[in-house]
Amino acid sequence: MRRSSGAVIGAVIALAVLPASGIAQGVDIAGRYGEVATRIIEAATSDSAAWNRLAEMADRFGNRLSGSQSLEHALDWVMEQMRADGLSNVHGEPVMVPHWVRGEESLELVEPRAVKLPMLGLGGSVATPPAGITAEVLVVSSFDELTVRAAEAKGRIVLFDAPFTSYGQTVAYRTGGAVAAARVGAVASLIRSVGPFGLKTPHTGVMHYEDDVPKIPHAAITIEDSGMLHRMADRGETIVVTLKMSAETLPDSPSRNVMGEIVGSEMPDEVVVLSGHMDSWDVGQGAMDDGGGVVTAWEAVRIIHDLGLKPKRTIRAIGWTNEENGTRGGNGYRAAHRADLSKHVLAIESDNGAFNPQGFGFTGSDAAYAIIQQIARLLGPIDANMTRRGGGGEDIGPMMEDGVPGGSPIVDGSRYFWYHHTDADTVDKLDPAEMGRLTALMAIVAYVVADLPEPLPR
Amino acid sequence: MRRSSGAVIGAVIALAVLPASGIAQGVDIAGRYGEVATRIIEAATSDSAAWNRLAEMADRFGNRLSGSQSLEHALDWVMEQMRADGLSNVHGEPVMVPHWVRGEESLELVEPRAVKLPMLGLGGSVATPPAGITAEVLVVSSFDELTVRAAEAKGRIVLFDAPFTSYGQTVAYRTGGAVAAARVGAVASLIRSVGPFGLKTPHTGVMHYEDDVPKIPHAAITIEDSGMLHRMADRGETIVVTLKMSAETLPDSPSRNVMGEIVGSEMPDEVVVLSGHMDSWDVGQGAMDDGGGVVTAWEAVRIIHDLGLKPKRTIRAIGWTNEENGTRGGNGYRAAHRADLSKHVLAIESDNGAFNPQGFGFTGSDAAYAIIQQIARLLGPIDANMTRRGGGGEDIGPMMEDGVPGGSPIVDGSRYFWYHHTDADTVDKLDPAEMGRLTALMAIVAYVVADLPEPLPR
Repeated sequence: MRRSSGAVIGAVIALAVLPASGIAQGVDIAGRYGEVATRIIEAATSDSAAWNRLAEMADRFGNRLSGSQSLEHALDWVMEQMRADGLSNVHGEPVMVPHWVRGEESLELVEPRAVKLPMLGLGGSVATPPAGITAEVLVVSSFDELTVRAAEAKGRIVLFDAPFTSYGQTVAYRTGGAVAAARVGAVASLIRSVGPFGLKTPHTGVMHYEDDVPKIPHAAITIEDSGMLHRMADRGETIVVTLKMSAETLPDSPSRNVMGEIVGSEMPDEVVVLSGHMDSWDVGQGAMDDGGGVVTAWEAVRIIHDLGLKPKRTIRAIGWTNEENGTRGGNGYRAAHRADLSKHVLAIESDNGAFNPQGFGFTGSDAAYAIIQQIARLLGPIDANMTRRGGGGEDIGPMMEDGVPGGSPIVDGSRYFWYHHTDADTVDKLDPAEMGRLTALMAIVAYVVADLPEPLPR
Repeated sequence: MRRSSGAVIGAVIALAVLPASGIAQGVDIAGRYGEVATRIIEAATSDSAAWNRLAEMADRFGNRLSGSQSLEHALDWVMEQMRADGLSNVHGEPVMVPHWVRGEESLELVEPRAVKLPMLGLGGSVATPPAGITAEVLVVSSFDELTVRAAEAKGRIVLFDAPFTSYGQTVAYRTGGAVAAARVGAVASLIRSVGPFGLKTPHTGVMHYEDDVPKIPHAAITIEDSGMLHRMADRGETIVVTLKMSAETLPDSPSRNVMGEIVGSEMPDEVVVLSGHMDSWDVGQGAMDDGGGVVTAWEAVRIIHDLGLKPKRTIRAIGWTNEENGTRGGNGYRAAHRADLSKHVLAIESDNGAFNPQGFGFTGSDAAYAIIQQIARLLGPIDANMTRRGGGGEDIGPMMEDGVPGGSPIVDGSRYFWYHHTDADTVDKLDPAEMGRLTALMAIVAYVVADLPEPLPR
């Protein structure tokens, strides 16, 4: 995930006060769906199917940046697997996606002593000249400090050594650091990686330019090295680095949102979306962000299908493309489905890491939230019956703007930003049992909403 | 630290039963040294001097492998600083140390898909031919599995994907993996890095050959990639890698143990040693292993000196050379001081990470341990008054073999093996307040032992 869903993670948790009655829309949800929920939980937690599927995808295709062959191969593989699972209407819906390529890159400390500094160029950055940029480093802690010291920035490389507070706050240096540095005459910009902890682990992610500001190369260094350069500066030492980046932005490239369904038995044109995103950054395996999300969404639908359940409405598993650097998948889906968004009853996106589930966050009407709270009671056996106001995801954001109720699992995110957008985002960071419970949560919420007599009230 | 001190960390903790009396050798230790202990604690915990000193050393010299210029420059700097601190008899005692150089190295997965795998050659390994070794990988979980599958190893690269249990157990694959693999005809060997957790973090460390077994290249890969290759093998996929290493062992190189003293006021030829090791592996900053140990030992002596305390016996701060791959420092000291080891009252080494101190481990006579238990009572104000049987360190090991009582701080080692021998062993992993308390502990134990009327009974 990137920016906007960070805000969701950071949202204040409002523990739900359950409605006194167990009746919603005249339906006794616990009574009617209790047995189904038990069967779903049993199926989803009896083996490591979701984790194994993710491991196979992650090991086989590695990371999956928009525009890469690995993403397109993985999309083909998912559709092939969805067909093998017996899902219906398996297909890809084409969208064009940005195509940024990292290329070779390096950062070397030249003064006060020679050492290579691990780094990751930020997504969308321009290259340096082939010989690199060698310049003195100006270290600042914040945009405010850069403003105060603007006169020192000209011709230098600015390093934003901004301590991690929350993702929502600190990511501003990743997204906007190059613009701020270029405005005061810097020739390149570096950031301390956006995360609370690392083991010399640089984090990549998307960054932005503005049309009226020179485009300068922008890269992340490790928390450790950022701190070291800051200490050197505080000691009055002159810091010189050589930054080399050969990144380029190629023409947009064809990609697809991939999907498969269980067609509704009574109202097939009404749809519940269960989703995660297939693309990742070009590091690690994109296992947490968001392979685990898309696999648990898809596995939830597979389990409903395998149990022979026939919801009244259609449940559609979607693997989005291009969440990380463009949202072309989510926007493309809205554009292609504008005519039927009014029949989209609920869209769920799992993009907070396939960690231990705690509950469900929801964005929609009060009446719909009351129903979600009833459904959440079914998640008690997996200790995931918390609900809160506020849920969604980057890819379902466009359709939520058009009125579709949206939601997302609440998970234990305590280590999310240790792995986020790093080479350490690998399948071993996820736990089979936790993924099983997350799959159960998504299957239960989706199935019940898809099977209620009435659609969720908007 | 390396192998032998791992056993110390793993030792069973026997909480001490304090002797009923507060009197040892006829001295009321709490009464006589309580005020001094309070002053030491106040001095050591009132600022971040130890952390700042370590940061300066770590940032200025980086890592410090035996044979490297950075180690020798750091040794010069320490002596210069010890003189500036006002310590006496500051000097280096020469020893010759092994000189292994890593050179360029890389590992690439060729089949089933092309991807670079982060790796670290293991200390002492031979090189590959310049074009590298390209071979199929045989993945095993243990030496036992390799024995069973010995017929499959010929001409292959063996990967030991041994899960971390304890350092003492798991390090056997690092030290002995190449020999075991070569015995069954392997052309190179790889290990899963020795640690419980990583962020794509390879760990280096020393390895061994045997004279009658072919010397094959030996390297560590990350926990993540080791698991991935194991899963690929379990799926029946053929795994091919290309390993390139240009490591070489050069002729032994001159180095030094560095030391400075507070000369005893009454028995100057009786000595208490406070020490850590100056050398490190050639990754990270060698800040935890063992920059923090040597700096807190030295800072403890500096604080005793600054407080104007005049112990009866000499307190000697030592920064050892070549702990990591030879113990030439510790052995050289024993050889040079054989005549005066009988006057070494106590040797302390801090090499378990300069983390939050919990107490003191001691190896020596029962009568001496009873005194140590009395002294430990003085550490109550910093919550570090635990004692246990069993303490020491790699560098003081030789003199302990010759009868010198030895000890080491007990610290919170919960994250020690996250950082150990990695690029993430940097000063930010240590905490200024914890280092202050550790400094206080070492200063108090050393001062009291140095000032008692009688030497610690052997």
